[in-house]
Amino acid sequence: MTAEIICVGTELLLGSILNKNAQFLAIELASLGIPHYYQTVVGDNPQRLKQVIKIASERSQVLIFTGGLGPTPDDLTTETLAEFFGVPLIEHPEIIADIARKYAQRGREMTPSNRKQALIPQGAEVLPNSAGTAPGIIWRVAGVTILTFPGVPSEMQRMWQETAVPYLKSLGFGKEIIYSRTLKFWGIAESALAERVSNFLNLQNPTVAPYASQGEVKLRISAKAESEAEAKQLIAPVEAELKQIGGLAYYGADDDTLAIVVGKLLLDAGETLSVAESCTGGGLGQMLTAVPGSSSYFLGGVISYDNSVKISLLGVEPKDLYELGAVSAKVAEQMATGVQTRLATTWGISITGIAGPDGGTATKPIGLVYIGMAEANGEVQSFEYRFGAMRERSLIRHLSACTALDHLRRKLLQ
Amino acid sequence: MTAEIICVGTELLLGSILNKNAQFLAIELASLGIPHYYQTVVGDNPQRLKQVIKIASERSQVLIFTGGLGPTPDDLTTETLAEFFGVPLIEHPEIIADIARKYAQRGREMTPSNRKQALIPQGAEVLPNSAGTAPGIIWRVAGVTILTFPGVPSEMQRMWQETAVPYLKSLGFGKEIIYSRTLKFWGIAESALAERVSNFLNLQNPTVAPYASQGEVKLRISAKAESEAEAKQLIAPVEAELKQIGGLAYYGADDDTLAIVVGKLLLDAGETLSVAESCTGGGLGQMLTAVPGSSSYFLGGVISYDNSVKISLLGVEPKDLYELGAVSAKVAEQMATGVQTRLATTWGISITGIAGPDGGTATKPIGLVYIGMAEANGEVQSFEYRFGAMRERSLIRHLSACTALDHLRRKLLQ
Repeated sequence: MTAEIICVGTELLLGSILNKNAQFLAIELASLGIPHYYQTVVGDNPQRLKQVIKIASERSQVLIFTGGLGPTPDDLTTETLAEFFGVPLIEHPEIIADIARKYAQRGREMTPSNRKQALIPQGAEVLPNSAGTAPGIIWRVAGVTILTFPGVPSEMQRMWQETAVPYLKSLGFGKEIIYSRTLKFWGIAESALAERVSNFLNLQNPTVAPYASQGEVKLRISAKAESEAEAKQLIAPVEAELKQIGGLAYYGADDDTLAIVVGKLLLDAGETLSVAESCTGGGLGQMLTAVPGSSSYFLGGVISYDNSVKISLLGVEPKDLYELGAVSAKVAEQMATGVQTRLATTWGISITGIAGPDGGTATKPIGLVYIGMAEANGEVQSFEYRFGAMRERSLIRHLSACTALDHLRRKLLQ
Repeated sequence: MTAEIICVGTELLLGSILNKNAQFLAIELASLGIPHYYQTVVGDNPQRLKQVIKIASERSQVLIFTGGLGPTPDDLTTETLAEFFGVPLIEHPEIIADIARKYAQRGREMTPSNRKQALIPQGAEVLPNSAGTAPGIIWRVAGVTILTFPGVPSEMQRMWQETAVPYLKSLGFGKEIIYSRTLKFWGIAESALAERVSNFLNLQNPTVAPYASQGEVKLRISAKAESEAEAKQLIAPVEAELKQIGGLAYYGADDDTLAIVVGKLLLDAGETLSVAESCTGGGLGQMLTAVPGSSSYFLGGVISYDNSVKISLLGVEPKDLYELGAVSAKVAEQMATGVQTRLATTWGISITGIAGPDGGTATKPIGLVYIGMAEANGEVQSFEYRFGAMRERSLIRHLSACTALDHLRRKLLQ
C-alpha cells in the first residue's frame, strides 16, 4: 500500500510559493510508515489534473491532494475528482451552515461562491476544516482512497492531524513506522565518507544514505519498525559503527549544529569564548548566539572589518598588517590573542580571509582564509584554508565560520 | 513546446529537505516564457525514475532534472536516462581532470567514486558546473531536450544562469517573456499596503501581487510581452505609482536588500558606519558585510553580548547597566555612541534586546528591543520595539537587524 502526494495550484507552477505542504506530508507519511514514491505538482487545469489522477490511481492506493478547494472558479480539485470517477456531486447543507457560521464569526457574510465548497462526491465523507472554511473529503472509490486538503498550510496541517491521521490509523496504518536519525560530519568530503561507509549503503533495514550541502556531510539512517523504540534499536548499532568510522569528523545528530555542539563542550568545561571577525563580518557571532543560552559561554567579540579596527580594538601590529597583509597567519593569530585577552575569555577565535568576488590576487586568491585560535595559557595557532576561488562569497563566509567552530570543537574534544 | 521539472531524491520523499529547486526553476521558466504544467518528485530508484521519464517525455518537450548527479551509488539520474533511451555512457577524461583540479584546489584528493561523474550519455553535451564537481548534461534525444543539474541549489542555480539560459534562448525560447519586478517595503503591514494599492491588484497586464515574509512586504509586478523592453514599458508607470503610494516604506527592488540600499546611501554621502550588537550577536554586521565592497563604508563593530564587553569595549556606564538593565534606551544610546566614537565612524548603530526563548519578564517581555543611532555630531537617538513574545528567537533577531538598517536608511534619506 503506497501513497502519493498531488499538489494542485498554478501558483506552484509559477514559483510564487514554496511547496511546504509536500514536505509536511512527506514527513508525516514517513512517520506513519506509509511509503510514498511520487509527488506531483499540477496547475488549476481540469484536463491535466485528470491525467495526473489517472497516472496516480494506477500506481498508488492512497492519493493525497492539497489545493483547489477554495470558492473561486479556478478551485476545481473536488469537481475534477468527481468527474474522473464518474460520480455526481451532492450539496451538503451542513457544510453551508458551517461556512456561514464561520463567516459570521469573522463579521463577514458568506458569498454565493462559497456554496461550491459544499459540493462533495456521492459516497465521500467530509474531512472537516476547523481552522478555515474549505472542508476536504475522505473518499474510497475504485480501489483507491482519496484525501483532499486546502492549500493553506496551517489549515491543511490541522486537518491532517485532527482527522486524517486517526482515519489512516483506523485503516491499519501507523503500525509500522519509519524513524530516521541523521548523523552530521564536518571536515570530510562526501565521496570520502561514502567510500569509508560503502558497505552500509546497501543495508535494507535500517538504510543509510549520504547527503552533502555547504561543506557539511550527513548520513541518514532510516529504520522501519512497529514502534519508535524498535526502530531506535535497529538504528543504534549502525549509528555507533558510523560514528566510529567518522571519528572526529562526526560532530552531532539531527538538530545539532556546530555552534550547539561547541556550546555544550564549553559549558561542560566551564570555559568561555570570544571572536574576532574580518571577512565573516559577524557571521560567526551570529551562529554562536543563534543558540539560546549562549550567553553562558560566549561573551562577544570584535568585527574588525577595517584594518584600523584590527589595530585599535585588537592590538594587531600595524607593521605585520602592512607587511604581511590582513589575510595572513600572523594577523589571524594576533586577532585571536587580541580578542581573547581583551575580553578575558578562555578561547579567542579569529577569521580573516578573502571572500570575494573582488580582492583576490595570484598569491592570495579568493577563498584564502586564516583561522586563528588563542588559548588562555598564551598559546596561539592558525590554520590556512583555500576554499576555492570559484565559490560564492556567501558560501566562503559560511565555510569559514563553520570551519572555525569545527577547529575549536576538535580542540575541546582532545 | 512545454517543459517539465523532475526532482530526483529520496530525501525529498522523506521530507528531509524542502524543494526549493522546483520553485527556482518555476520562476525561471516563467521568465523565459516556457510553459510548464507538471513537477514530479521521485526517489533514487531506477525503475520508478524510468517510469517518470516515460510519462514526462510523452507529454513535454524539455525535461529538467535536478539531483542524482553525485558520486555515490544512489546517484543515478545520468545512468538511468542513458538506459531509458538505450544509449551507452561515455567517460569524458576532461571531466575527470576538472574534478581532480577542483579537489586539488581545496587541498583534497579525488576519490575513485568521482569517476562516475565523468560518465555522460553518447551524444550529450556537458553542462559545466563552475561551483561544484558534478557536471550536468544537455541532451537532445528522441524528440526531447534533457537538462540535468545537481541537487545543491547554489550549484544548480549558477549552472542554470551560466549555461542553460543561453542554451534555451538559442533554441528560440524567451521570445514571449514574462518579466517581473518586485518592489520591497519595510515598516508597513502587508494588509495596510494591500489596502492602499487595492485597485492595482485586479490589473491584467501587468499584474500586481502582494507577498510578505519576515517583516518585509513585497509587490510583484509581472508583465507579459515580446521583449524585456516592452515589458518594462508596461511595468514602469505602475511601478512609479506604487512607489509613490509606498512612500518612505519603499526601499528597493528585486535583489536590493536593506544592507545594499543603506550601503549605497552611505557611499554617496561619503559616510561610514560601525555597529554594536547585543541580542543580534553579529547578525547586523553579517548583513552589512554580505554586500561586496562594504568595506568602503562599514568599518566594523563590537559584539557586546556580555555586559562586561559593553563596559570594556563600548564604555557603557556600569551604573546605567545595573540600574536600567542592558535592555534599555539609555544603554542602547551609549552602545551606539561608544562604537561610533571608538571606531571614528559617521554613524554608530546599536541593538540590545530580549530575543528569547528565555529572559523575558512582565516589564521587559521577549521581543523588547532597543535600537540606538549615534551621529558624528554627538547626537544620539533610540527607538523601542516590541516584536512580540510569541515570535521565535531567529525572527526577533532578524527583525531587529533589519529595523536597525531601516532606521539608518530613513535618516540618510532625510
